[in-house]
Amino acid sequence: MMMAASASSSSSSSAAEVDQSSDNLRPPASVCDGWYGVAHGCTRKLGMKICGFLQKNNSLEEKSRMVGSFREKEQSHNRENREKESRFTHTETDFSNLFARDLLPAKNGEEPTMQFLLEVMEILTNYVRKTFDRSTKVLDFHHPHQLLEGIEGFNLELCDQPESLEQILVDCRDTLKYGVRTGHPRFFNQLSTGLDIIGLAGEWLTSTANTNMFTYEIAPVFVLMEQLTLKKMREIIGWPNGEGDGLFSPGGAISNMYSVMIARYKYFPEVKTKGMSAAPRLILFTSEHSHYSIAKAGAALGFGKENVILLSTDERGRVIPADLEAKIINAKQKGYVPLFVNATAGTTVYGAFDPINDIADICEKYNIWLHVDGAWGGSLLMSRKHRHKLNGVERANSVTWNPHKMMGVPLQCSAILVREKGILQGCNSMCAGYLFQPDKQYDVTYDTGDKAIQCGRHVDIFKFWLMWKAKGTVGFEQHVDRCLEVSEYLYNKIKNREGYQMVFQGEPQHTNVCFWYIPPSMRNMLDGEERRERLHKVAPKIKAMMMECGTTMVGYQPQGDKVNFFRMVISNHAATKSDIDFLIEEIERLGQDL
Amino acid sequence: MMMAASASSSSSSSAAEVDQSSDNLRPPASVCDGWYGVAHGCTRKLGMKICGFLQKNNSLEEKSRMVGSFREKEQSHNRENREKESRFTHTETDFSNLFARDLLPAKNGEEPTMQFLLEVMEILTNYVRKTFDRSTKVLDFHHPHQLLEGIEGFNLELCDQPESLEQILVDCRDTLKYGVRTGHPRFFNQLSTGLDIIGLAGEWLTSTANTNMFTYEIAPVFVLMEQLTLKKMREIIGWPNGEGDGLFSPGGAISNMYSVMIARYKYFPEVKTKGMSAAPRLILFTSEHSHYSIAKAGAALGFGKENVILLSTDERGRVIPADLEAKIINAKQKGYVPLFVNATAGTTVYGAFDPINDIADICEKYNIWLHVDGAWGGSLLMSRKHRHKLNGVERANSVTWNPHKMMGVPLQCSAILVREKGILQGCNSMCAGYLFQPDKQYDVTYDTGDKAIQCGRHVDIFKFWLMWKAKGTVGFEQHVDRCLEVSEYLYNKIKNREGYQMVFQGEPQHTNVCFWYIPPSMRNMLDGEERRERLHKVAPKIKAMMMECGTTMVGYQPQGDKVNFFRMVISNHAATKSDIDFLIEEIERLGQDL
Repeated sequence: MMMAASASSSSSSSAAEVDQSSDNLRPPASVCDGWYGVAHGCTRKLGMKICGFLQKNNSLEEKSRMVGSFREKEQSHNRENREKESRFTHTETDFSNLFARDLLPAKNGEEPTMQFLLEVMEILTNYVRKTFDRSTKVLDFHHPHQLLEGIEGFNLELCDQPESLEQILVDCRDTLKYGVRTGHPRFFNQLSTGLDIIGLAGEWLTSTANTNMFTYEIAPVFVLMEQLTLKKMREIIGWPNGEGDGLFSPGGAISNMYSVMIARYKYFPEVKTKGMSAAPRLILFTSEHSHYSIAKAGAALGFGKENVILLSTDERGRVIPADLEAKIINAKQKGYVPLFVNATAGTTVYGAFDPINDIADICEKYNIWLHVDGAWGGSLLMSRKHRHKLNGVERANSVTWNPHKMMGVPLQCSAILVREKGILQGCNSMCAGYLFQPDKQYDVTYDTGDKAIQCGRHVDIFKFWLMWKAKGTVGFEQHVDRCLEVSEYLYNKIKNREGYQMVFQGEPQHTNVCFWYIPPSMRNMLDGEERRERLHKVAPKIKAMMMECGTTMVGYQPQGDKVNFFRMVISNHAATKSDIDFLIEEIERLGQDL
Repeated sequence: MMMAASASSSSSSSAAEVDQSSDNLRPPASVCDGWYGVAHGCTRKLGMKICGFLQKNNSLEEKSRMVGSFREKEQSHNRENREKESRFTHTETDFSNLFARDLLPAKNGEEPTMQFLLEVMEILTNYVRKTFDRSTKVLDFHHPHQLLEGIEGFNLELCDQPESLEQILVDCRDTLKYGVRTGHPRFFNQLSTGLDIIGLAGEWLTSTANTNMFTYEIAPVFVLMEQLTLKKMREIIGWPNGEGDGLFSPGGAISNMYSVMIARYKYFPEVKTKGMSAAPRLILFTSEHSHYSIAKAGAALGFGKENVILLSTDERGRVIPADLEAKIINAKQKGYVPLFVNATAGTTVYGAFDPINDIADICEKYNIWLHVDGAWGGSLLMSRKHRHKLNGVERANSVTWNPHKMMGVPLQCSAILVREKGILQGCNSMCAGYLFQPDKQYDVTYDTGDKAIQCGRHVDIFKFWLMWKAKGTVGFEQHVDRCLEVSEYLYNKIKNREGYQMVFQGEPQHTNVCFWYIPPSMRNMLDGEERRERLHKVAPKIKAMMMECGTTMVGYQPQGDKVNFFRMVISNHAATKSDIDFLIEEIERLGQDL
C-alpha cells in the first residue's frame, strides 16, 4: 500500500516519482472508493481529487513559489534536468549495428535513442552554423539524373530491408549537403527566406509534440495560442476589438481559396447544399499581377477560370480602380453577379500594393466581398513606417497574411482572417460526430476543426507564437523596416548604374526590386525584336551559372510583354548591404561576357 | 591573391576553408577571365569549372574514397564534426540577459545560438524520454479558461517587447507540460498516435532545411524523394510499373478533395474554365460511414452537399454494392450524371473496408471514377497478411493514403495517388511564370508545384522517406501486423466480458474496436429509451475522468442511431497488450459507480 500512503499525504512529490518502477498509474481501489459517491455532476473536481496524487506541484506552497517567479522556476527546471539528463551526455556510439528497432519504445532503447537524437542534433546545429557562414555555398547544384544515379553513394531508392542508424545519419547529412540553404544570407530566390533560430526551435518542439489542431482535447495549448495570435493579427488589421475569425492554413493559396469560399457562402449560402447551379453566374475580380491562386481557386471551386476577371494595372502593377468599376458594370450588364474582389497587398513580382481604399469604395457601392491578399505584403502592417501602404485594409471582409514570408517565420505559416464571426464555421462545418462531440467536459467552442476544409491540421502556430514572444511586436517591426532598408539600398545602387534597367520606375513599395542586367555586348543595341530575344536569355543564363557556382540565388521571370528580368526580394534578416554588393558584383561577373 | 593561388591548385581543401575570414566567395576576375570564352551553350560545365575551387571533395582521389564506403565516410564526418563542434559542448549559460536579437545572424551570435539550441534540445529529448515512460501522465488537463488565465505564470498573451531567452525556454517547457503526449503508449484517442524516433529526426531536419516543394530548384533532394516514394506506393497499390502520378497534400481531407477535382476534370475538363454550369448535375457517392471530407469537398468544389449521395452499409459499416447500383440508376433516371464513387478502405469509426472489387465492377459498368479513401486503411497494403482487405484497389482511379496514420509517420503526411499520368497537372496548372520558368537549366518536369492547388507546399516527404530507409518495407509490415495483433487481443478480451457490449459483431477488420461499457447499475436494465439515454452519457463521463486523471485517452462518439460508444484504435508502436489491460481496468475503475 505504498502508493496509497503517498497519495493521502498529498506531498509535492508524485506517486510516479515515489514508485518509479510501477508500470501502472491506477490507484488501488481502496484509495479511490471514497470519492466515487460524489462523481455525478462534478466530474472535473472529482477527477482532480482522484488524480491529485499524480500531479506534480500541487501543494499550495509550491504553487505560490512558482507563480511569478520565472527565474526561480527556470533554475529549478535546470537543476531537475541536469540531474536527470546527466546520463545522456553525448558519447561516441557505434551506430553501425544499431537499427530503428533498437530505439524507443524498444527495451533498453533509451540510451541509443538519446545518442541518436543527439547525433542528429549535431548534424543540424552544424548545418545551422554553416548556413550563416558566407564562405559556405548556398547550394551544391546537381541535375536530377545525377542525384537519381546516386552521387557519392547517396542512394535515394527505398528498400525492403532496414538500414543501420549509421547509414541513416549519413543520409541525413547527404540530404542537407545536396539541398539548398534557404537561410543563407545570399539566398534571395523566394519570398520566404532566412532561418530564424527561435522559429526553428519552435518547429522542433512542434514536431516533438506531434499533434493536430482539430480539437482543444489534443492540442489545448496550441489551439489557444492560435486564437490569441489571430486576435492580435485582427487588431493590427484594425478590426474593432480584434473581433472576427480565422485559421492558419497550409499556405497563401489555400488561405485565398478560403476567402472565395466564404464570400460565396455569405451571399449564396445555398451553394453549400445545392451546388453552383443554385447561384447565378458569379464573377471574381483580381489584378493581372495578382497571385495565380485566385484563378486556381476559381477553377477548383467551380466558378471557372473565365469567370475570374483580370483587372488592368498601372505601370507599377497596381490595380486601376476605374478599370475595376468598368468591369463590374460590364459583368452586371451581362446579367452576371460580381461576388468577390481581391486586392493584393504586395504582388509577387513587383511587390505592388493595390489601392485598398479606392477598391473598398467600389466594393461597398456594389455590395461585393473585398478580400486583401496580403500573403506577401501583410507583414508591413507590423511597421509604423510602412503600414500606410495597406491603408483601408480594415475595410476588407477577409485578409490573407503569411508570416512565413516577410516575418521570417519558418514554413508553413499562413493565416486567413475573416471580419465576420461565425461565417467560417457556417461555410465549412459538417459536424462530424466522431471528432466534435458536443458532450465533452470542456467548452467545445474551442474545437476549431470544423471550420476548416481540412480535417487534421498541422500545428503552424507555435513557432510564430514563440517568435512573437521572443521578439515582441517591435522585433517584427524592426525586421520589416530593415529588409525594406536593404532593398532601398539595392534600388539606389542600381537605378542609375551602367548596365541596369529598371522594370518599373520609382522606388518599389515592397522589397521587390525588378531589373534587367544588360551585358556590355548589348548596351548599344537598339530596342527591337533581336534585343528582346537576347535579353530574354540573359537572366536564365546568369541564374544557371549562379546555381552551378552556388554563390547566390535570385529569381527571374517574364511578366506580360516584358522579357525575363531579375526579381530581387529581401525577407532574410541575415542579408546585409554587403550581400547586395556581392549580388551585383556576381551578376556582373557572370554576365559581362554574355 | 591568396584566393587565386588556392583556386589554381585545385586541392581538396576549398577556398572557403583556406580563407575562413573572407566575406566573399567571388573569385577575383583574373582567375575567371579565361573561362568566359566558352560560356555559351554549356553553362553547366562552365559553372563547374568556374566554381570548382569552391567545392569540397572535388579531387578524384577523395571521391573514390567516399563512394561505396559509408562507414569510412561516416567516420570522417564524425572526425570533422568533432573537431568543429568541440567548441559547442553544452555549457551552463545564463539566458536571462540574452534575447532573440543576440542569436545568429547577430555578430558573435554563434555561441549563444548553439547554447540555446542545445538547451531546447535537452527539453525535447527529456520530453521524448518521458513520453515512453508509463509513469508519466498522458496529459495534465486544464480548462481553456484556466490556461488563458495563466497557470503558474504561463502567460499566453503576446507583447510588444521581447522576452529573454530564459523565459522562452520556460515557455517551451510549459507548452509541452500542458499539452497532450500523443506518443504515450496509452494515448489511443486518434488515428494518428505514437512518436517515431526516426520520423521525429526527419521532421527536425525538415524544419532546419526550411524549404518548399514547389520546384526542384529549391528542394532538389526532397522533390526526388517524393517522386520515388510515390512510385513505390503506386507499385504497392498494384498499378503497372508504379506508373501514374501523385502528391503529398496537407492531410486526407485535401487528398480526397483532389480526387473529386481530378474526376471532374477527367470527365468535364471544361469546368476548369467555365465553371460548374458547363456540366450537368454531377453526383458523388460515398458511404454513410465514410469520412466527412467527401461531403466537405462536394460543398467546397461547387457540387453541393445534397449531390453527395450517402450509401447504405451493412451492420459492419461496409457499403452494400447493390445499394450503390440502385442509387446510380436512380440518379441517372433523374437525368443526373454519376461522376465519382468513394470506397473507403478503413472507415474512421468502425475501421470497415468497403468491397472494392464489387464497387469497381459497378464503376466500370457505368463509367464512373473510383476513388479509394485509404487514409486510415491504406497502410494495410504494407502487410502481406492484411492487404487482401483492399483487394481491387489496383482498379481505383485514385487513392488517398495517409502514412501519418497507420504507419506512424509524424503529422502531416498524406498522399493522393492517381493512376493516370498528366491529369493532376492538367487539372490544376495555371503556369505561373514567376515560379515555373520553362527556360531553366535543368529538366523542369521535376517542378511539381503547378500540379497542386497550393503554391508553397510543406516538405512532408523527408520523415517518411527516412523511416522507410530505416525500417525497410518489412518494418512497416511488422508495425501494421503488430498493431492489428494488439487490437485483436483487445477484441478477444472484451467480446464476452461482463459489462461490455460490442457495437458490431465479429472480429474488426482494422484496429478499430467499438464497444459500450455498461456500468454495473445498468446491467439489468431492459433496453429502451431510459437505458439509451443513460448509456449515452457513460462514455463521455468516463472519458472526462480519464482526461482529468491523465492516465489514458480513448475516443467515443455516437454513430447513426447508436448512442455514444468507445472507439479504440491502435496505431502506436509503443502500445502493448499490458496497455490494453490497463485501459480496460481504467474504464472499469472510473465507470463502475456510474
